Amino acid sequence: MTRIALDAAGGDHAPEVPVAGALEALEALPETCEIVLVGPETSVRAEVERHGPVPKRISVVDAPEVIGMGEKPLAAIRAKRKSSIVVGLSMHKAGEVDAFISSGNTGAMMAAGTLLLGLHAGIERPAIGAALPALPTPVLLLDAGANVDCSARELVGFAHLGSVYARDVLEKPRPAVGLLNIGEEETKGNTIAREARALLAREPALHFIGNVEGSDVLRGDCDVIVCDGFVGNIVLKFYESTGRIFGDVLRQELSETALEVEGMDRVFAFLDYSTYGGAPLLGVRGVAVICHGRSSSRAIANALRVARRSVEHHLSDHIGVELAHPGAVA
Amino acid sequence: MTRIALDAAGGDHAPEVPVAGALEALEALPETCEIVLVGPETSVRAEVERHGPVPKRISVVDAPEVIGMGEKPLAAIRAKRKSSIVVGLSMHKAGEVDAFISSGNTGAMMAAGTLLLGLHAGIERPAIGAALPALPTPVLLLDAGANVDCSARELVGFAHLGSVYARDVLEKPRPAVGLLNIGEEETKGNTIAREARALLAREPALHFIGNVEGSDVLRGDCDVIVCDGFVGNIVLKFYESTGRIFGDVLRQELSETALEVEGMDRVFAFLDYSTYGGAPLLGVRGVAVICHGRSSSRAIANALRVARRSVEHHLSDHIGVELAHPGAVA
Repeated sequence: MTRIALDAAGGDHAPEVPVAGALEALEALPETCEIVLVGPETSVRAEVERHGPVPKRISVVDAPEVIGMGEKPLAAIRAKRKSSIVVGLSMHKAGEVDAFISSGNTGAMMAAGTLLLGLHAGIERPAIGAALPALPTPVLLLDAGANVDCSARELVGFAHLGSVYARDVLEKPRPAVGLLNIGEEETKGNTIAREARALLAREPALHFIGNVEGSDVLRGDCDVIVCDGFVGNIVLKFYESTGRIFGDVLRQELSETALEVEGMDRVFAFLDYSTYGGAPLLGVRGVAVICHGRSSSRAIANALRVARRSVEHHLSDHIGVELAHPGAVA
Repeated sequence: MTRIALDAAGGDHAPEVPVAGALEALEALPETCEIVLVGPETSVRAEVERHGPVPKRISVVDAPEVIGMGEKPLAAIRAKRKSSIVVGLSMHKAGEVDAFISSGNTGAMMAAGTLLLGLHAGIERPAIGAALPALPTPVLLLDAGANVDCSARELVGFAHLGSVYARDVLEKPRPAVGLLNIGEEETKGNTIAREARALLAREPALHFIGNVEGSDVLRGDCDVIVCDGFVGNIVLKFYESTGRIFGDVLRQELSETALEVEGMDRVFAFLDYSTYGGAPLLGVRGVAVICHGRSSSRAIANALRVARRSVEHHLSDHIGVELAHPGAVA
């Protein structure tokens, strides 16, 4: 039995979107998978009931306090012990659920994930992985915003975290790892990037393929791309906006008839990054998944799928082993 | 009379593409504008003549040496005094031409631009500006790769350079300047970004609107976006690749008929970043424009348009005044 807790109070449209996402996911998830909605019980239950009777595999756990998107993470999780993030992660720590997903305050998720779940040995701060839609398969970019100033050693840690995730969740048996940089040569880049390249090349457990440039990110040669959270966050958010602007260009240049041809819906789905979702918080002892505040119900359903896969493939255990004995899992 | 020198030996497909670009541009440029092709004379002249008799407004200046894309910039420009880059920029310095454009070795352009043209007072290294296609008008991102590690003070310099360029060349009377960062709040970002934000806010001559996130780059609220050359280069090259992948998605998802509907050619033109072109090297005393090595003839023609506008709007003089007396030009 896999039990996944979902923050029903986090994000811009709670509880509507998390509840809709849970119901959407339920059909695709096997009978052995249950969803626990965490949030103000009365309103969450009412929202579920708006869709019909509460399904057997959905339960609600009360968390009456809400952490706002603008609140200071550490102060908020200390003051609001009955917030959905603190309640959900505490349940995960206690083994009552196997994973926790939130589209609430990202900083609060990071802080509470670190404090409540703890970190694997060798990790100083968790990293956020973002699976960018690419052809033929997504590419994992990390860190996508958790660590603004990173040491070269931390980038190496991200490479290990990302490799395990790519194997367990993205189904890449031998993930190719690249270092995001401004040229292929080893002399290229800023100080940290040059140092990280040298360190990465000396890690036999990684399938490190060298520097990758911005133009290579979506090329498909690489499964995991490491960078500091400043660059990663900018690239991730920029990607969302390119999808939006290319959608605008389609709408501006094509006739209404042309916009309705077979396949165009899939094009727009690809362009809408909010339809993806579920960025793992890697390095914590457990499975914590962060969603965009503007997530659609489809993004939430996808995050539930990602969380389930992470649990059932023993992601957290594998990360612990990889960090202690690099290469032992592969 | 405006005379623009164009490197006919630089780029992946020289002299074919530069020559085709020059001929393409000639029709749109006024009678008072001449193009000087710089490169191995015999082969450049032969390439022009392949299209017909050499037009009156096109001349060829011999530069028999070629700097390869992989050569070390400083060593190359010192050793190859008869290369197109050294010859073209020397002519510009001597006042024989008003601008120089190259799609050759970017590092060599930067080094030769700095050494031969000199820098405006207050500038330590030139910056590369990249006009990203956005709706409704392009946005200027700088630095796009010339300066890997930047101080906060240098970022302020980029803001002034970019503002003058946006006014003179992109026709934005009061350019809004943003600092590329990972959040809107002033506490966000790495050390340099936080410091730069504070400095930028104290520059009355700039129309500084604060931090902009990756998702805001193409939104159109901002005309000039400053960042260090590491981030800028990654974002620029990433943008090119998103266009390519979205093109692939269109081709994958739509039928051949759907791909031929009215307007689809304009969509693909927008997605093909190589159709743009002409990144100014800002901070040098003069007009130097860098093109992608893979530039199309259309990109070259566009760079000629950009160079002409830079010359005729007195970009370099305005930059000198702006740096000495911020706000005096506006």
